[in-house]
Amino acid sequence: MSAMVDDTPFGDAPPPVLDEAWFAARATTGIQGLKAYDPGHDLVAFRRRCGDGRLVELGSNENPYGPSPRAREAILANLHMLHRYPDPLGGDLKRALSARHGIGTDRILLGNGSHELLMQMAQVFAGPGTDGTAPEVVAPRFGFAVFALATQAAGAHLRIAEPLPRDSAMPLGHDLDALLAAITPDTRLLYVANPNNPTGTWFGAGALADFIARVPREVIVVVDEAYAEMADAPDYASALGLLDAHPNVVVTRTFSKAYGLAGLRVGYLIGAPGLVAVMERLRESFNVNGLALTACEAALGDEAHIEQARIRNAEQRESLSADLRGRGLEVFPSQTNFVLVGFGREAAPIESALTERGVILRPMGGYGLPDCLRITVGDADENRRLLAALDECL
Amino acid sequence: MSAMVDDTPFGDAPPPVLDEAWFAARATTGIQGLKAYDPGHDLVAFRRRCGDGRLVELGSNENPYGPSPRAREAILANLHMLHRYPDPLGGDLKRALSARHGIGTDRILLGNGSHELLMQMAQVFAGPGTDGTAPEVVAPRFGFAVFALATQAAGAHLRIAEPLPRDSAMPLGHDLDALLAAITPDTRLLYVANPNNPTGTWFGAGALADFIARVPREVIVVVDEAYAEMADAPDYASALGLLDAHPNVVVTRTFSKAYGLAGLRVGYLIGAPGLVAVMERLRESFNVNGLALTACEAALGDEAHIEQARIRNAEQRESLSADLRGRGLEVFPSQTNFVLVGFGREAAPIESALTERGVILRPMGGYGLPDCLRITVGDADENRRLLAALDECL
Repeated sequence: MSAMVDDTPFGDAPPPVLDEAWFAARATTGIQGLKAYDPGHDLVAFRRRCGDGRLVELGSNENPYGPSPRAREAILANLHMLHRYPDPLGGDLKRALSARHGIGTDRILLGNGSHELLMQMAQVFAGPGTDGTAPEVVAPRFGFAVFALATQAAGAHLRIAEPLPRDSAMPLGHDLDALLAAITPDTRLLYVANPNNPTGTWFGAGALADFIARVPREVIVVVDEAYAEMADAPDYASALGLLDAHPNVVVTRTFSKAYGLAGLRVGYLIGAPGLVAVMERLRESFNVNGLALTACEAALGDEAHIEQARIRNAEQRESLSADLRGRGLEVFPSQTNFVLVGFGREAAPIESALTERGVILRPMGGYGLPDCLRITVGDADENRRLLAALDECL
Repeated sequence: MSAMVDDTPFGDAPPPVLDEAWFAARATTGIQGLKAYDPGHDLVAFRRRCGDGRLVELGSNENPYGPSPRAREAILANLHMLHRYPDPLGGDLKRALSARHGIGTDRILLGNGSHELLMQMAQVFAGPGTDGTAPEVVAPRFGFAVFALATQAAGAHLRIAEPLPRDSAMPLGHDLDALLAAITPDTRLLYVANPNNPTGTWFGAGALADFIARVPREVIVVVDEAYAEMADAPDYASALGLLDAHPNVVVTRTFSKAYGLAGLRVGYLIGAPGLVAVMERLRESFNVNGLALTACEAALGDEAHIEQARIRNAEQRESLSADLRGRGLEVFPSQTNFVLVGFGREAAPIESALTERGVILRPMGGYGLPDCLRITVGDADENRRLLAALDECL
């Protein structure tokens, strides 16, 4: 021991090259198999090149109407507090969420976006155990990319459930029976989203209740409801109503979509107090920034603004879908603020041509849907410009 | 398998109580042994009770002079972008940091505070391996609380190095020989801070270089320099100058202290490109919020503001230290914006009495220094109010 410590480790040799492979070999198994996120376009550079307001940004499912004005007012009222650490309890925001959802604050966990919460669910519950078993996570083939990233980062094995057929009534939507069939005794966690990204599809209240009732209680189910505020189908229901009877179920929500606050990074999880308490152990004390806490609390109080966003989104989603179908394209059913669109051929050249015209969409090749693009439902002007550019490219 | 999946798992029995113990038993070993952060005082409630500006908040080592006005201006100029996701590359801020430190952007990793970076260093490099060895992490007894939290969360074993004697020239400062002696073949990571929190102590350039040269290259050394911008001792030097020769060393910095932006949550790590590339795999794509990116870039450009903060802090640190010593108290040497103060008796009653008078300090009982309090160096008015309250209590 002491020889190792006392000797100069590099001796007289030149310092070795410690490259990515060297460091990766020292990382956990999960990280060794993990790939860094590919951000795609450098949107900031692109905005700079094209000039402000010239781009049609329909790639990230942001709310084109922006947040409630109350969010901006709350930020302005708190600019004198930038040097202070945020409230580590997030007390005011939690109480506002508690009132909104009619649940105790001890059932709410705040995250630096729901991304952080989804990652930490796997880190906490699907990490390597001491019993030698290889933990497994079940997720749908077409689901939020973070489900697979979280599983890989935790070093768990991902079991993928295939979707409903593309020619079904809910094309590429979650096949809940397939998800159940993918569960094994080693399954610790199951991710699902309703409505779903990137397909836009959903499942109804009855199917949800039946599904949850059939999941073994040893399996923790994460129902990501990032787009819940945009859903208006009569048969859609949040899983929140099932949590009392099924404490192994958690719901994640975000302020990045309907609330128009993607820039501030706030998501939250609602679950059993015992689960939240365990997750709180890992939560960094100041994980949600101070301006975000106050802006989200303010935005939550402006129900009319959210209602307007929902109505305008539904109107635009309907007209955009009709316009796209009128061009012979396949438009998947959606309860979100985006539509998945099939072009009947390789979509990459179309996406490139649109990008050249300043229209940013989301390629789906990485998801295994090379003939599709995901299109955020913009406001009327954005959708018009998208369609005009599309007509030039098709 | 199918029986398990197809049967209603709860049968006719009432739903079981899934409490914290139930969920903890399903968490990783590291999380099972982890305790949730104790935020101490509910500062928000306290501010509300006492009225704005009445409290003397000297518990969190915040910068009483606040951030550069340019930070607020940058926030105002970006309020129309709240609905957009932040730049996932953090390109502008990274380029500003690159220019400031004279290093490539591929050597910079941005974090949601350095807290996130310190946690993820252990998650990536001290998590359970596949080779059956129990990873170890070395840290000083008196160091940033997150060092121990990160180690525990990763499920690694913490080996603690005892400090220099309290009656030495650098009381309770890092004993670098003791840190080296704590390294074993299972050590993956070593945390150290310079200047150090909660002691305020530091070590000089020669001792640092000698120490780093003696650490085996298989051990990754994290030098947390959260307070570096406040240091003005002639013998103090950042570890940044050693990184080229020692790619197993990383430096963490923060915008929460000298830059006065604790509320926005930005820290950064500088290290070998290979290490940064591995850490980038785990980084959440939007981990730093949009207002923070732009505010930190702006603050970085205002060097005069930082210089002023350093000068005023040094002046106030000197006069506050003298005033405290004049009251017979033990004041530890400090190169930071706080002083550790020994009261020669149990400090908890003093801290309580000060809290009743609206003066918030940091108790040190949790650190094993029950006779000490940590006092942030405030502005002249805050320090005067602190001393007046202290005189009532002593």
